[in-house]
Amino acid sequence: MMTQRGLLIVLSGPSGVGKGTVRKAIFEEDGIDFQYSISATTRQPRIGEVNGEDYFFVSREAFEEKISNGDMLEYAQYVNNYYGTPKSFIDETLASGRDVFLEIDVQGALQVKSKMPEGVYIFLTPPDLTNLRERLVGRGTDSQEVIEKRVTAARDELKQMINYDYAVENDQVVFAVERIKSIITAERLRVARVFEKTL
Amino acid sequence: MMTQRGLLIVLSGPSGVGKGTVRKAIFEEDGIDFQYSISATTRQPRIGEVNGEDYFFVSREAFEEKISNGDMLEYAQYVNNYYGTPKSFIDETLASGRDVFLEIDVQGALQVKSKMPEGVYIFLTPPDLTNLRERLVGRGTDSQEVIEKRVTAARDELKQMINYDYAVENDQVVFAVERIKSIITAERLRVARVFEKTL
Repeated sequence: MMTQRGLLIVLSGPSGVGKGTVRKAIFEEDGIDFQYSISATTRQPRIGEVNGEDYFFVSREAFEEKISNGDMLEYAQYVNNYYGTPKSFIDETLASGRDVFLEIDVQGALQVKSKMPEGVYIFLTPPDLTNLRERLVGRGTDSQEVIEKRVTAARDELKQMINYDYAVENDQVVFAVERIKSIITAERLRVARVFEKTL
Repeated sequence: MMTQRGLLIVLSGPSGVGKGTVRKAIFEEDGIDFQYSISATTRQPRIGEVNGEDYFFVSREAFEEKISNGDMLEYAQYVNNYYGTPKSFIDETLASGRDVFLEIDVQGALQVKSKMPEGVYIFLTPPDLTNLRERLVGRGTDSQEVIEKRVTAARDELKQMINYDYAVENDQVVFAVERIKSIITAERLRVARVFEKTL
């Protein structure tokens, strides 16, 4: 008998959709014991920040070594500092049986997925994408041109969705949280994962 | 905009696992509006049975024509009568946007899956399969031989599980129902299905 491996849960979506709010609400739920994915950075710790809690604070050399080792699931540079997601920390946490939760932008999520396709990839969508054209037409206040522009913009956002396993509408945070909890419950019951913990 | 196609939900599992009890409990839940899959049969209606509610009562010729048309998702003969699951009824219900729930034995579920692989296939497992060997050894009351026999029998049941999407332990009916509801919620959020109802 093996310990069942934890789930990697990746929450992503367009900027402004409310990923951070939904993530915080999930972590406040009863019975949730996810490890939040801790980023590595080369920037200096601020007062009160704790290494291994807020960030893994590493030197530029150490960060670049992790990149060339393939230990960065994704990374980016801002203001001359690196920020990234170390794979080893996630791997060890999952192996211990604990789930890891990663909230990340769309570019980062794609990088992570290329290295850990076994994760559960959830795309948070704005509430007004579903049935957009129908609603705009029904409302009767927008010109055909405005409707086409809005539908095209929405379609561009939705194109990113195809890389994900699930699409969760963020109409209300409590509903989004319930949907994500159902997804996680269901994913734990997937036969491929259940086999690991039997016999 | 299209109506989102309904889900075909197939609940199966070893005989005696409690499929019927779990199915009844699901249909009694608030907010559940599944169409129960109605079987076709060549046997005579009993008093009080209604065609199109309890069964589709058809002649032997009509049933055999459905078989040769490929309209029987699965069928079997008992006591000189045919019993089977007509595909057209399920297709029409799904196309109308309503979910269809089918409770069926393991042989039937495999036949259905070969024809409608897009369904959600749930295997209900007895509560005592998980970690069986560990628990038997830990209990310390069974000989090594007895333990091996029970583990082998359990392994045979579990082998059927590999054909399903989800495995749900029936430790308590209320828990099994909650798990199945989470699976259905999650499946409705799968990107492949959500795309159908957007733009």
